[in-house]
Amino acid sequence: MISRDDCLALDAHDELATLRAEFVLDESLIYLDGNSLGPVSAPARRRVNEALDGEWARSLVRGWGEGWMAAPTRVGDRIAGLIGARTGEVVAADTLTIALAKLIGGALELRPERHVVLTDVANFHSDIYIVRAVAARAGRPVAVKAIERRTLDEELNGDVALVMLTHVDYRTGEMLDMTTITKHVHDAGALMLWDLAHSTGAVPVDVTSANVDFAAGCGYKYLNGGPGAPAFLYVRSTWQGALENPLPGWLGHARPFDFELDYEPAPGMQAFVTSSPSILALASLEGALEVFERISMDQVRSKSLALTDLFIALVEERLGGLFDIVTPRDHARRASQVALRHDEAYAIIQSLIDRNVIGDFRAPDICRFGFTPLYLRYVDVYDAVEHLARVMRAESYLDPRFAVRKSVT
Amino acid sequence: MISRDDCLALDAHDELATLRAEFVLDESLIYLDGNSLGPVSAPARRRVNEALDGEWARSLVRGWGEGWMAAPTRVGDRIAGLIGARTGEVVAADTLTIALAKLIGGALELRPERHVVLTDVANFHSDIYIVRAVAARAGRPVAVKAIERRTLDEELNGDVALVMLTHVDYRTGEMLDMTTITKHVHDAGALMLWDLAHSTGAVPVDVTSANVDFAAGCGYKYLNGGPGAPAFLYVRSTWQGALENPLPGWLGHARPFDFELDYEPAPGMQAFVTSSPSILALASLEGALEVFERISMDQVRSKSLALTDLFIALVEERLGGLFDIVTPRDHARRASQVALRHDEAYAIIQSLIDRNVIGDFRAPDICRFGFTPLYLRYVDVYDAVEHLARVMRAESYLDPRFAVRKSVT
Repeated sequence: MISRDDCLALDAHDELATLRAEFVLDESLIYLDGNSLGPVSAPARRRVNEALDGEWARSLVRGWGEGWMAAPTRVGDRIAGLIGARTGEVVAADTLTIALAKLIGGALELRPERHVVLTDVANFHSDIYIVRAVAARAGRPVAVKAIERRTLDEELNGDVALVMLTHVDYRTGEMLDMTTITKHVHDAGALMLWDLAHSTGAVPVDVTSANVDFAAGCGYKYLNGGPGAPAFLYVRSTWQGALENPLPGWLGHARPFDFELDYEPAPGMQAFVTSSPSILALASLEGALEVFERISMDQVRSKSLALTDLFIALVEERLGGLFDIVTPRDHARRASQVALRHDEAYAIIQSLIDRNVIGDFRAPDICRFGFTPLYLRYVDVYDAVEHLARVMRAESYLDPRFAVRKSVT
Repeated sequence: MISRDDCLALDAHDELATLRAEFVLDESLIYLDGNSLGPVSAPARRRVNEALDGEWARSLVRGWGEGWMAAPTRVGDRIAGLIGARTGEVVAADTLTIALAKLIGGALELRPERHVVLTDVANFHSDIYIVRAVAARAGRPVAVKAIERRTLDEELNGDVALVMLTHVDYRTGEMLDMTTITKHVHDAGALMLWDLAHSTGAVPVDVTSANVDFAAGCGYKYLNGGPGAPAFLYVRSTWQGALENPLPGWLGHARPFDFELDYEPAPGMQAFVTSSPSILALASLEGALEVFERISMDQVRSKSLALTDLFIALVEERLGGLFDIVTPRDHARRASQVALRHDEAYAIIQSLIDRNVIGDFRAPDICRFGFTPLYLRYVDVYDAVEHLARVMRAESYLDPRFAVRKSVT
């Protein structure tokens, strides 16, 4: 049996333990939802206030000449290190769905003779909406096939222009084999676009060695950039110049202040900036990324696996049989969350939230728990399972307060 | 001759004078660039800190259920009052060019049998880039004609699907007749999209009485929402439901947390939200809009005209013949800026900036000065012209420091 003292002992030897002090955390909460929205860090808070009181208030419009113009690529370069990209291959801009629209639209024009896009039927719904919308406006008939991902190899053929997959399944936490899949896609002559929303800052990613063409990801989950933080886009350097931004704007122009009538893309990732990005939002993300400069993604990965291993072991030990653990046990296929399937998943999550343990419900029947090594302790995992055991033992999720599913809107 | 004391007297009787205290201003500056980037206001500053330390830090992911989901439409409703729109017709989201992409793309699908888009060859370059890019991907051949705007009536015919114009010319400050133009466009069976970047918060706009179909505008100029503040979109209620968002995402879905495979737009303007918007950026804009709740756009307009009248009179009195005043004298055609043409415009603006008078250079030969009634004094106008007179008299713009045009990037 794993004891609470065992967990305290793990915390005492945790080399990332000191990072917790960088975050503004409510000590009465156990926050297992950093895979949905990461918390405020001290450097994020400091950078927002610098941008507000230092830059905006003091420099006013001159701020654009003093660093704001370069903010999307500067923040992009900080993210590059976390996904194995090179300097100059990443830009932070827009929301994730808009970032995907740019990459999908551009990619379809690189394979004009092909007319199929493959994606995963289990992909995040917003990804499916945008790929369908962009394909419907590709200027030629393009079919989007949302397939079971295990059938990918069968579906790959000379008709496929682009494959868009999410590296980590947002429901189950299953991580796909980026290198092998990308290779198969390339063998079929198609292009590969990865959504790294649930990967970046959570698991080591190496887009360079995996030979990825394009990727996009999220600033507000494991990167802790703030609610609705800018997304990022990755375009492998060999595609830069060839990949067109289908949503061009003046900040992506080679000479934005020459006000030329014809669009000429700036070199590099600046071409994927459309118009003025929020400097406050970028400042928050930039600050949040500072925390990552003190650690390696290997350290993050070790602790992440230790946390999810511990959670799975405790659930099995104390709640064996009550839940279907849908997240893979195999480390190579597991990211940084654990999903438990239960018919009463919604009410169970509500009951846990009522006890200050914050997880996520994902329809129709998933309890989702994110494990974020930067600020989570082993003892938090222990205590969370203790709360879950109490909820299940007392059947407190049957409380009518938790029965009716309310929409967040 | 207009004296400095005359201007001080005007300030003493200015009913908007107390608003200046709401803004964080460097008293050593004369800031005539609020039409490019408005300054920080106390409520904007307060709301950002509330969003950061109150909402994000305290509520974490629960913030989405506690007000963040509604932020784009809530902020939109505040803007609605400034442009004569009704509640539920405006949403704050994305950058201005992306907002235009949504409206242009949607509008083209409402006129499938027509194949021409008209815009102004003098339009802001980013507007021209995006309309061309969206038209090129309309799923049918669509030609974008960038015309001299005085030829609009001749160009309007049964081929025209959409006319996209900017209400106030960013270079000259000329304001177009929204009502008459919209009527002519409708008479030809086309749709009308107005870019209100240089209008909103600067001049009274009434999209309802002008029968405007669609509009978009800017949060960071006269609204003072912060660098790169969210843009806004207006869709007349009669078009809601019919106008499709060509860049759909999960936050615009009728049931975002049901994770449905098929996109079904939410009712109203929520459908034009794509994915998670920056809550810090929206908070800043929301705070900035509070200042407008204390005043009417008629008050803003009266003072704006008085300020630009004063500037023009002083330039004529003291610098007559040195500049070509390209902004219309006619109040009905003048917005809230004055543009002076001069061959040495770039160097003159640099020389003024060196003297802490902040204006804008707009290629090739425009000195642009924005007059923002919320925080500008009549005496600032006087002092600005005094600086300009000294620059011209001493020919200090000939200083080699100001000769070479540097790119802001």
